[in-house]
Amino acid sequence: MEYLQEINSPDDLKKFSIEQLKTVCSDLREFIIEQLSNNPGHFGSSLGTVELTVALHYLYNTPYDRIVWDVGHQAYSHKILTGRRDRFSTNRKLGGLSGFTNPAESEYDTFIAGHASTSISAALGMAVAASLNNEDRHVVAVIGDGSMTGGLAYEGLNNACSQPNNLLIILNDNNMSIDNNVGGLQDYLVKLNTSFNYNRFRNSLYQGFKRRNLISEKEKNIVLRFNNSVKSLITKEQNLFEGFNIRYFGPVDGHDLPNLIHILHNIKEMKGPKLLHVKTVKGKGYEPAEKSATEWHSPGLFNKDTGERIIKVQKDQPKLYQDVFGHTLVEMAQENSQIVGVTPAMPTGCSMSFMMSAFPKRAFDVGIAEAHAVTFSAGMAKEGLIPFCNIYSSFMQRAYDQVIHDVALQKLKVIMCLDRGGLVGPDGPTHHGVFDLAYLRPIPNLVISAPYNEHELRNLMHTAVYGNEGPFVIRYPRGQGEFSQWRNEPQILPIGKGRLLKEGKDIALLSIGAIGNNAARAIAEAEKQGISIAHYDMVFLKPIDEEILTEVATNFKQIITVENGVIKGGLGSAVLEFLADNKFNNVRVHRIGIPDEFVTHGAIKELQQIVGLDTESIFQQIVKLSQPSQHVNSVDENVSPFPTAR
Amino acid sequence: MEYLQEINSPDDLKKFSIEQLKTVCSDLREFIIEQLSNNPGHFGSSLGTVELTVALHYLYNTPYDRIVWDVGHQAYSHKILTGRRDRFSTNRKLGGLSGFTNPAESEYDTFIAGHASTSISAALGMAVAASLNNEDRHVVAVIGDGSMTGGLAYEGLNNACSQPNNLLIILNDNNMSIDNNVGGLQDYLVKLNTSFNYNRFRNSLYQGFKRRNLISEKEKNIVLRFNNSVKSLITKEQNLFEGFNIRYFGPVDGHDLPNLIHILHNIKEMKGPKLLHVKTVKGKGYEPAEKSATEWHSPGLFNKDTGERIIKVQKDQPKLYQDVFGHTLVEMAQENSQIVGVTPAMPTGCSMSFMMSAFPKRAFDVGIAEAHAVTFSAGMAKEGLIPFCNIYSSFMQRAYDQVIHDVALQKLKVIMCLDRGGLVGPDGPTHHGVFDLAYLRPIPNLVISAPYNEHELRNLMHTAVYGNEGPFVIRYPRGQGEFSQWRNEPQILPIGKGRLLKEGKDIALLSIGAIGNNAARAIAEAEKQGISIAHYDMVFLKPIDEEILTEVATNFKQIITVENGVIKGGLGSAVLEFLADNKFNNVRVHRIGIPDEFVTHGAIKELQQIVGLDTESIFQQIVKLSQPSQHVNSVDENVSPFPTAR
Repeated sequence: MEYLQEINSPDDLKKFSIEQLKTVCSDLREFIIEQLSNNPGHFGSSLGTVELTVALHYLYNTPYDRIVWDVGHQAYSHKILTGRRDRFSTNRKLGGLSGFTNPAESEYDTFIAGHASTSISAALGMAVAASLNNEDRHVVAVIGDGSMTGGLAYEGLNNACSQPNNLLIILNDNNMSIDNNVGGLQDYLVKLNTSFNYNRFRNSLYQGFKRRNLISEKEKNIVLRFNNSVKSLITKEQNLFEGFNIRYFGPVDGHDLPNLIHILHNIKEMKGPKLLHVKTVKGKGYEPAEKSATEWHSPGLFNKDTGERIIKVQKDQPKLYQDVFGHTLVEMAQENSQIVGVTPAMPTGCSMSFMMSAFPKRAFDVGIAEAHAVTFSAGMAKEGLIPFCNIYSSFMQRAYDQVIHDVALQKLKVIMCLDRGGLVGPDGPTHHGVFDLAYLRPIPNLVISAPYNEHELRNLMHTAVYGNEGPFVIRYPRGQGEFSQWRNEPQILPIGKGRLLKEGKDIALLSIGAIGNNAARAIAEAEKQGISIAHYDMVFLKPIDEEILTEVATNFKQIITVENGVIKGGLGSAVLEFLADNKFNNVRVHRIGIPDEFVTHGAIKELQQIVGLDTESIFQQIVKLSQPSQHVNSVDENVSPFPTAR
Repeated sequence: MEYLQEINSPDDLKKFSIEQLKTVCSDLREFIIEQLSNNPGHFGSSLGTVELTVALHYLYNTPYDRIVWDVGHQAYSHKILTGRRDRFSTNRKLGGLSGFTNPAESEYDTFIAGHASTSISAALGMAVAASLNNEDRHVVAVIGDGSMTGGLAYEGLNNACSQPNNLLIILNDNNMSIDNNVGGLQDYLVKLNTSFNYNRFRNSLYQGFKRRNLISEKEKNIVLRFNNSVKSLITKEQNLFEGFNIRYFGPVDGHDLPNLIHILHNIKEMKGPKLLHVKTVKGKGYEPAEKSATEWHSPGLFNKDTGERIIKVQKDQPKLYQDVFGHTLVEMAQENSQIVGVTPAMPTGCSMSFMMSAFPKRAFDVGIAEAHAVTFSAGMAKEGLIPFCNIYSSFMQRAYDQVIHDVALQKLKVIMCLDRGGLVGPDGPTHHGVFDLAYLRPIPNLVISAPYNEHELRNLMHTAVYGNEGPFVIRYPRGQGEFSQWRNEPQILPIGKGRLLKEGKDIALLSIGAIGNNAARAIAEAEKQGISIAHYDMVFLKPIDEEILTEVATNFKQIITVENGVIKGGLGSAVLEFLADNKFNNVRVHRIGIPDEFVTHGAIKELQQIVGLDTESIFQQIVKLSQPSQHVNSVDENVSPFPTAR
């Protein structure tokens, strides 16, 4: 690497010539490839934005000027150029850099962006603030074509022309399916449009007409639209953005640095909202990634020289919950023609891809559009189809109203599979699926369940179709299940019934979902210490099993609840409510869950330790609660059978 | 009225000639005006869709064919024509018709639609289901131009061309601000485009080319786009919809019934998704309403002959919470230039209109776009502005992820005013703001408050700005406050501190928000019966006042909690959690709130009686709990000092 070591802030970038900046781009690519081969992260999109990032930091006066990155994983180059090169090896690790932008990490990061489609709205807010505060500040939003399918992006676009602002929206278009070469005519038009001379000419023409009262403000817009229509006619494509009165430039080659700098420079001082359409290639500069964009979006470890991905396959290791979901859905769809699948842009992540291959007409990837995914599912359910709508738990927050208003209120049989429930690990606080149990529980008419293992996942999927009328939530974690033999004969479970996993006499422990396996291991250890714990897998948060609750409230003095979700409002609260409503006053409840704070990023195991949901922590709580005195605050280290993980 | 009495279902409509249908339209107008002058409802939009409704039910085979009305209050004519004429006088009343469409009410209602922008997604689901089930069914979504600003509508549009379907979207455009006359050329184009001959010609041309291998599927799209561009060029406007590959027709005059029927007939059997742009006039056919659309959106009682609205003004009656908010915000904005206001399309309803008049550059109506409203506010807050983002509680469900991901996680100082918290009355289950306390409480970093009266509202608004850093929620109800003298000298309140309203010794009652006034009245009555209740106004749900909780847990054997929100997860649950965590086992908690079901529509007072939140019900609970035996299930009627309201 020639120059990268010298760049500690964007100011250093400004000293280089454009030729040298090209080398900076190669340096960045080399650095990113080197780093990510050792420390997994979002690869393809990072390589796609190298030139764009260099151009922006070269031309703009950051951090005074604001760059708002939509979904921060396109922002690795940005992080590396803004003083975080040496810490980049800690990316996504506990205590290290966040995988997304985060103002708490750097003044160059303007907004947290783990969820898509927020950048236009946030940047518009910043631009309007600059205007109100008479700051001569540039604000740039960089948004991918994927994020552009989200409703929030549209709401932002729709407002971008209604307030005075000079916002620049950069559409980072890396969609491989429309990877056409940029034609000569288009390039010509772009240069024409973005050159100062052309715009000066156009503006002075308007001004001249206006001075002579030949054109009103309204007519000016008509003329603008007319120009746009001509362009649209010539380029044979409709332009969405100009429908919003946002000036459109492009498309331009996002890897041609000199041209990119030239165009950005030209449009930088233009007044009013504008959009620059930049075509980039995911994985640009690394051949294997260019060839196979989906695979290399987030490839895990790889050998940077050979391009081989290093996938550790252990024999007989448990399957991912995701794959169990995907295979089971296909099995069920084979038997029941009414079953359909819906995913908002996560077919690979949630394994809806299996259904899409097996039944392409019955599986729908609707793009980054969670709200639509749910209401679209509701429409299908209204007509008797049985949609499995699979959405990551933290993204379901985006469809909360649709769950209430379009599904639950109408009691429609939509099966909502909340993937990645609980702590998710390296993606951190934006992606932890920890609020779902608490935000879903207050909604009437919902059945809410969480499987203890992959067999129960399959049972619940069958129960949702054959054992229930109306909406059904199945919430399960990211990652591996418990068995190598995941294919059980699926059972239809009784709605709202939990099960006794293990008898015991000192304390009753109630868990929901796969985190119960940590509890089971802790209970087994406690048993060795002579502590006898009864363990119930509640299976359903709603309706909750009142028979079990009555039983434990009658027979035990202490109850522990364990859930991989926020402590306020979830299983523990449901238990407390039942006990209060039924006048069980003599039983103490100790709730274990996520405390009332956002949990950082790191390995799932590390995060579970931090919040007290790992086996060791649960064990310690059990020991503590089983001791006669309640004033003991910690167990002796010697009691612990677990090696310290850190 | 000549014909309306004969129409008991759309089948009856089909017997009439088009001339007679015109009379049906006049009949409908007369009926709606008569009805709504006596029984308030949504007036302007109902009158605007008369011809459209008649045309649709005349041409389509409902209920087999599906009409999906976006926001059901444009669907009054639809209700009247589909067997509900005689019950229409019960509209929005307890036990009567819903003010929105509701499948539980009629098979002609395809989807519940109280919140905007859902129709395209839901209709697309139905259209896809029809296609999968080989049903030859037409599906029509009717969406207003206002609803079209919502992100969900865009997500729906964006997907409408990606699945095989024959969806017809009707854009009911009644925006008075773009009330241009429909030009001759446009009319010509519409007729040309929608005539069978033209389309037959165009299609046979394609087929001919295709047969001769002169055109590929891809090129066909280019040709289509080219045609669209020509049209766009001639009409001098960009067309958004064709950017989505949805065929666009219009605009057409939505009050010219014969033409409307003609065009709808022409496009009915066309394959693929299409959009018909219909121009309508809000309040059409009733002069006062045509002149003043906003005022007549939902005018209340009026004299149908004079057009005078009947507004009962009592001297010295308390102001609306909404107006206290509006005036206070202007006062505060006068003193602090960083304060700005944001509303998603509810400026009149929430009185943000006051700020928009006083500081037009500092108040933003962003359209029906709740998610954007919150993220846009977050962007402004990031730059040091202090946004008051005012959103109806039930609509805030649409911005849940933005509250978590864009505001709370970044600890941004956005002041979220949740108007219409609690039961809202005639708008019913889609609009009750009852989930907010439960869904917000699990979110870290939020301060959540609810004022007891309008003085406390003003205090909380000041506290949010001057007594707190970070996000702040103020939740207050629809309707009048408590005093005629609402303008107090605002105080900055200590965060997380409640207050003792009244001492007592038998039971402690903890309330949050204005519903506490019902509790106070009940307590006063109980006092007359010799029952002594201590009453605490908690003010803050989060952080909750642990000092008060410790005090009452120590000094009382019984606690009653009262909240105008769902019983699962709100104040009562917070109290239970505190007591459990702090080992207060000897106190019983009785929670009063909204039970776990959707609450119907009706007068607020009636609904409060149904759920047990009116003064009488709270009084009865107090009496019951203060009796030594806990097995008494109801108080003697004689004990009640309240007259029965029904």
